[in-house]
Amino acid sequence: MSELKNDRFLRALLRQPVDMTPVWMMRQAGRYLPEYRATRAKAGSFMDLCRNPELACEVTLQPLERFPLDAAILFSDILTIPDAMGLGLSFNTGHGPQFEHPVRSRAEVERLPIPDPEGELKYVMDAVRTIRRALDGRVPLIGFSGSPWTLATYMVEGGSTKEFGKVKGMMFDEPDTMHLLLDKLAQSVTSYLNAQIAAGAQAVMIFDTWGGVLTPRDYQAFSLDYMQRIVAGLTREAEGRQVPVILFTKGGALWLDKMADTGADALGVDWTIDLADARQATGDRVALQGNMDPCILYSNPGRIVEEVALVLESYGKGPGHVFNLGHGIHPTIDPDNVAAFIEAVHELSLPYHR
Amino acid sequence: MSELKNDRFLRALLRQPVDMTPVWMMRQAGRYLPEYRATRAKAGSFMDLCRNPELACEVTLQPLERFPLDAAILFSDILTIPDAMGLGLSFNTGHGPQFEHPVRSRAEVERLPIPDPEGELKYVMDAVRTIRRALDGRVPLIGFSGSPWTLATYMVEGGSTKEFGKVKGMMFDEPDTMHLLLDKLAQSVTSYLNAQIAAGAQAVMIFDTWGGVLTPRDYQAFSLDYMQRIVAGLTREAEGRQVPVILFTKGGALWLDKMADTGADALGVDWTIDLADARQATGDRVALQGNMDPCILYSNPGRIVEEVALVLESYGKGPGHVFNLGHGIHPTIDPDNVAAFIEAVHELSLPYHR
Repeated sequence: MSELKNDRFLRALLRQPVDMTPVWMMRQAGRYLPEYRATRAKAGSFMDLCRNPELACEVTLQPLERFPLDAAILFSDILTIPDAMGLGLSFNTGHGPQFEHPVRSRAEVERLPIPDPEGELKYVMDAVRTIRRALDGRVPLIGFSGSPWTLATYMVEGGSTKEFGKVKGMMFDEPDTMHLLLDKLAQSVTSYLNAQIAAGAQAVMIFDTWGGVLTPRDYQAFSLDYMQRIVAGLTREAEGRQVPVILFTKGGALWLDKMADTGADALGVDWTIDLADARQATGDRVALQGNMDPCILYSNPGRIVEEVALVLESYGKGPGHVFNLGHGIHPTIDPDNVAAFIEAVHELSLPYHR
Repeated sequence: MSELKNDRFLRALLRQPVDMTPVWMMRQAGRYLPEYRATRAKAGSFMDLCRNPELACEVTLQPLERFPLDAAILFSDILTIPDAMGLGLSFNTGHGPQFEHPVRSRAEVERLPIPDPEGELKYVMDAVRTIRRALDGRVPLIGFSGSPWTLATYMVEGGSTKEFGKVKGMMFDEPDTMHLLLDKLAQSVTSYLNAQIAAGAQAVMIFDTWGGVLTPRDYQAFSLDYMQRIVAGLTREAEGRQVPVILFTKGGALWLDKMADTGADALGVDWTIDLADARQATGDRVALQGNMDPCILYSNPGRIVEEVALVLESYGKGPGHVFNLGHGIHPTIDPDNVAAFIEAVHELSLPYHR
């Protein structure tokens, strides 16, 4: 493998000194870019794009051609694991993800296989290998997975939900069935992420998109405990470097203290908490990744620069900050505003690292 | 007016001793009740039901016939104010609320009138008067309004949203226009709630459904400050009794400390924080209302009783707790589970008040 030319992102995740604050964006390869929409049209369906390593590589690299981002993230979806378990994933315009075979009973949970990352999910590993070759050491590549709880919500509901009635119904009525499902998912996610690391991912992130809909007690038992088991089971070194692990629970600002005890290297933070408070809650246990409200990017360059300055100031001096949005970038954002954002992070962060 | 026979709810809001913990449910008059669905079918559209004081009274009282609830809440919608401002509200099945004339420009904000509560909104005050007569002192009647920020989200977006791009776009790009809109809404909400109190509401609640999508700084400037102004402008005594004010920001668990300084008597709390922690954050400044996950009601009576016990234990001894769900009850809940829930709150709370 080529030597890594920009390791700012990996160093910041390990709270090592850097010259400026690294920055990337969740969903940086996505619909706000016209070149993404062109590749997507060429590919066919969204899942056709995910399953095509050459095209997945193409869209992964597109934002790097436009902006001096400090990391690339594998283009894929969090629902590849349930799809590989046989649930039949499709994306229908306006309805989000849908599973043909949702999981509702003990018997259905028992029948679920643990997918082989180099079998049914080989297309993901092929994408990782292809992207690493194409990156040629330019920036590190992030691999990722959904958290067991988050995957379970889609698997039991059969798609997106606002109420979480079915998945919480199983959690409250049949906790043993839910734990069996989460256990299978934790095993699957662990081997999936380890395979991504073996294929070339240089950091991994676990997206717990729906942990924030739980009570503190249920969050611990049904989401955090399983993420902790995954973290404990991950390969933490590859190619002679540490492979940092990032946990991100959307709406989890209240639980950062608990999350910092999982053994993860860094925590994703949404914009509902000031980074100063998040830093105080987590001490020197983890790096923090975040946390600008993505809606700022609907605004104008002047306002964007102001907000970047506030976020940098809130984190303050010293290493351990990876700049990011608190959620994925929205599809109707103007790429010129993104350019202003990325430039401002690098430029305005210099004094914080002197 | 008839003397109030059950004032447990009002006393708890003022942190006065009670015999048992009072309980009511957000959306207790609603679609989970077959008798509600029958009245709704009779009325025509959802807004036809809100605009008919006799039928609004009928559905307000329906849950009290089934369950020993400690409060009634006016049957209405938070969007009556923007509707009275001329935005043209309708509810289309599957799409939620929609405004025919969303507010997007400075000129549109400037043209917005402050509605007359006994003019365009007289149907709401008539409903309050009708319900008070029908209640005949059985339990207190709660009046309510949306918060300025929450109303603004619907007014600018034109309906429900997941991204809040348009309303945050206005907030970031044209903060003066947003402040003018929020100022008009704060004036409107203040006079609307005071009119409800004059018509007979014995407590009022401000629903800040979308305050939780803001950063701490924006929450303070664009939501909390306006709620504080409303609280300061409310009639706090009527019929020789205090009229308590409840603030509820969904997703606002991180900000309870700030909210407790607004002068409100009580704070609504969702289930993302333990009541013990909420109580510690707010001290003896406010009562707390909440905070059971409404999805528990999808479960079974045994599990519901367990969860009620945990919530009561988390609040602990002493006055100042009104039991509620952390969000409105879902439409597919079995009313028999609600009966088990209400009974458990009263029975299991007795030792906490000895």
